Formats: sequence, C-alpha cells, structure tokens
Amino acid sequence: MERMYEDYKKIIDEHLLDFIPNIDSKSISLYESIKYSLTAGGKRLRPVLLLAACDFAGGDIHEALPYACAIEYIHTYSLIHDDLPAMDNDDLRRGLPTNHKVYGEALAILAGDGLLTTAFEIINKDMMLYFDSPDKIVKRIKASYEIAKGSGCRGMVAGQVSDIEGENNEYSNEMLEYIHINKTGALISAAIKAGLFLGNPDSKMIINLDKYAENLGLAYQIADDILDEIGNPEELGKAIGSDKKKNKNTYSSINGLEASVKRLKELTDSAVEAIAPYYDNAEFFRNLVLELKDRKK
Amino acid sequence: MERMYEDYKKIIDEHLLDFIPNIDSKSISLYESIKYSLTAGGKRLRPVLLLAACDFAGGDIHEALPYACAIEYIHTYSLIHDDLPAMDNDDLRRGLPTNHKVYGEALAILAGDGLLTTAFEIINKDMMLYFDSPDKIVKRIKASYEIAKGSGCRGMVAGQVSDIEGENNEYSNEMLEYIHINKTGALISAAIKAGLFLGNPDSKMIINLDKYAENLGLAYQIADDILDEIGNPEELGKAIGSDKKKNKNTYSSINGLEASVKRLKELTDSAVEAIAPYYDNAEFFRNLVLELKDRKK
Repeated sequence: MERMYEDYKKIIDEHLLDFIPNIDSKSISLYESIKYSLTAGGKRLRPVLLLAACDFAGGDIHEALPYACAIEYIHTYSLIHDDLPAMDNDDLRRGLPTNHKVYGEALAILAGDGLLTTAFEIINKDMMLYFDSPDKIVKRIKASYEIAKGSGCRGMVAGQVSDIEGENNEYSNEMLEYIHINKTGALISAAIKAGLFLGNPDSKMIINLDKYAENLGLAYQIADDILDEIGNPEELGKAIGSDKKKNKNTYSSINGLEASVKRLKELTDSAVEAIAPYYDNAEFFRNLVLELKDRKK
Repeated sequence: MERMYEDYKKIIDEHLLDFIPNIDSKSISLYESIKYSLTAGGKRLRPVLLLAACDFAGGDIHEALPYACAIEYIHTYSLIHDDLPAMDNDDLRRGLPTNHKVYGEALAILAGDGLLTTAFEIINKDMMLYFDSPDKIVKRIKASYEIAKGSGCRGMVAGQVSDIEGENNEYSNEMLEYIHINKTGALISAAIKAGLFLGNPDSKMIINLDKYAENLGLAYQIADDILDEIGNPEELGKAIGSDKKKNKNTYSSINGLEASVKRLKELTDSAVEAIAPYYDNAEFFRNLVLELKDRKK
C-alpha cells in the first residue's frame, strides 16, 4: 500500500533535529533558536514531497532523509528571515511568536544563516558516505543541485526580492505569477525533482513530475492567497487579510476571488493530467493537489 | 617560480562575478546589491588561500576557481549580514557605505542569503562536470564539505553568535579565542583544506597545513584587533576604536597591546614551524603569516 501524507510527515517530524550538528555549548542560544523554529509545527510539505517522489521513483526514503530535512531547514530559514522587521515584520507564525520576537533580530538572522548552511553541510556529509558507489554519488549531486538552484538567486531568493519590492506597487498578473513561481514554486519543484533523482527515474517521469510540480506550486500559492482572504484565523494560526494589510499583491487582490478559484481549478486539473500515466502508483500526488481546494491552513 | 599573493588575487578579481547565475531582470536589484558588495574591494584572503593551497598540493588552480569564488561569496554574505543594524550596525565597510545603507535592509538580508546559496549552487554545478571522473568528484565533495562546515553552526555562524552575545560582557581569554577561532579562523582553515583537497595532498600535508591554518586564523584576528587600536583610519577605510566603542571584546582590550603583540608573534612562529618541512615550496604561506605583524589594513 502506498504511503500517505501523514506517514511521510511523521518520519520527518521524528528525524528533523537529527541532522543539526553538535553546536558547541558556547553557542547554545544558536541551537535553541534553530530548534524553536524547526519544532514550531508546519505542514512539512517540501520534505514530504521529496520523500514521496523518492518512493515514487523506487528509491529508499531512509537514504533520502538528509535531503528531506535539508529542504525543510531551507524552508524554515526562509520563514525566519521573511518574518524579520525589515521584511514582512510578522509577530506570529503558526500561532506562535516569530523567531526574532523570542530570540531577537540578530540571533534570528544567524539562526537562518545557520540553517541554510547546515542544509548543505549535511548533504555534503551524506555524499561522503558513498565514495565507493559512483552511481549513488551522481544521484546525490543532482538532487543537491536542484535544492541549491531552487532556493537561490534563480529561485526562492529571487521571488522573495520581487515580493518585497512589489509592496505598495500594483503588479501585473504576469509579475505576480513570476513571484509565486519563484518564491514558493521553485523549492516545491526542487523537492520533487531531488526526490526523483534519489530514486531511479526515467526521463519521461522527470518531465511529467516537473510539470505536475509547476502546477502544484502555483496552485498551492493561489490557495494560500484565497485563504488569506476567506480562511479561519484560528485554523490558520494568524490573522486573515494580513497580506492585504501590507499592501501585498495576491492573486485574489489582482483578479478577485472568483477568478482565483477558477485559476486554482485549472492548475489542479493540469497537475492531475501530468501524472495521468501513473495513476496506479500516484495516489499520493493526486490526492495532494485535489485537496488544495479544501485547504484550511 | 611560485605564484605570489597578488597573482592569485588578480585571478579572483577577474573572475569573481563569472559564477553569479543569470538573475532574471524582474529581480535585477538582487544582482545589483550582490555585485555592489562583491566588487567593493577586499583582500580576497580566503579565495587566495584556497588557490594557493591547491597550487601547493599540485592541483590545477583554474579547476579550483568555482570553490575559491564560492568561499568569497560566503565571506561577503557574512560581512553584509554582520553590518546590518540588528548586528554590528556599521555604515561603512572598506570606506564605502555598507550594503543596507545603499539597498535597504531587506535587500541586504536577501543579497546575503542569495550569495550563501549561490556558493553551494556553483559548487554543485561544478561537480556535475565530473560524473565520469570519480576521483575528481571525491576531491570536490571533500572540499565542499570543509567549506560548508567552516561556515556553519560549528564554524563561522557559531563564532558570530558568541561575538554578538559577548557585547557588553567581559569575556575570558578562552572565550575570546573561541570566538576568533570560529568567526574568522574556521573559514580560513576551510579555504586551505578545501584547496589542498582539490590538489593531491598526502595525509601529513593536511595535518601540517591545518596546524598552519589554525595559527594563521587566530594571528590574523589578533592583528585585526591590534589594528583597531593603533591602525591608520585612512588605510583601514574605517574609524579605529570601532570595536571598543561597541563594547566588543578584543584581544587587546582584554590583554593589553603588549601581550597582543607577543601572542601574535607566538602564533606566527607556530604557523611558520608547521610548514617548515616544505620551505622550498611554501614561500607564499611563509610570507603571508610573517607579514601579518606589519599589516596595515
């Protein structure tokens, strides 16, 4: 039987702290600040996708665990930095005080820097286990490259720059999709691609799942924009309308709620279509995208 | 004839922007902010050390260039983040306005994040060129691991955390050396080790150069502390006494100037001793550490 979202999430939650290196007692507040944000909940979407894609491509998900945790470290660093006063200036994240509210700005910046660096440290450390298996090394380098590219200046960081600069300016739909594709989509695509590479994918599988990932990433963000408008604050762990209050461009602020719901459906349909050749074996990916329209948080 | 400091530095200065990925025009301010800090001068100590160590161990320095640039990207990101208002709150760096003074805090944080991620992106991209040469891959993974470890939670970030937390507290000498060893020394050691791994080092060479690097890293920082007390502001590109003004612990504030000069000499002697077996072939490393006592900036 296929593993489901909660199965993967449980594995991530159980092992997420395993890969944080032993931080010297003289810098113990760094460890505390990192641990605070890593254990403050979250859907673990990116690492779950990585494990599921690895599973889907016939890989060993336990071998993929360092990569899954690395991508969650990167996602977590991006949230810590996004919440900073100079960025989104958020006090709450998932119903808890944001990192800088608890540990101060300096430590929040450094915890983010530390998490990002740790992601690549543990990936490199993992590669060192396979010096006698060139095939396994190749898979790992490909996976690592996807993660680095998706989170960098042609991915997540680029999207974040445009998002910040777009505040108080009205954006075109094209620009908004650029932001979403980079800020959220790139790391989601990277998670799926990295997971596939850690298994044994054929080239068609990579193309199809990549198409799925692109549609999923954008759909996910539009569902987020819809939730910011009509979600339940208690379930979300934050106030609704917070994007609007910051004069942020969202899909629904530009196109209205009805068009957003329609676009969400188009994207989920395309995502489902992309994985049609694998229906017998892709229940996880199918459910994930179909459930987006009922997303509560 | 052995290459000298300026030879390596010239290569770095010429190629430093080559490895920044094509950033989309929609995020062009990210590129500008990154470029500003990368081209704002600097001694290029870490990449120079990496190339020199690669040369020393019989490697091809042109193949080492992505790693040398990656380590300078990491150093540059750390300076951008260090200068932020929440951290050292510096307006000037090398005689020019700091990144956040020109581009604002949000973009400075993101330029730092982007540089750090790019470092690992280009390293991974480089590894992908050598899928048919397992030996070269092994060298590269070892080099990359040193860079990641030296810049992370057991290296530079740890040192930075203790440094920030130590402001306004009087530290023991032991704690101060812990900060220096991590904040500055770890990346210097990583540069040398990574450069060696990219060549063909024997195990004794790694041990000896590691000892050299440890002494050099600490000596370099103590020379910096001495300069902060008695340097020439024009040559330094910043006011002297700036550490003192921030109530930062420096070697000379704890131990006095005379003891600092003495400790610097001890460390340079130990560094020179560590490379004694290679005198015929280690002029670069010998000169570098001996010139520290005459450092002007």
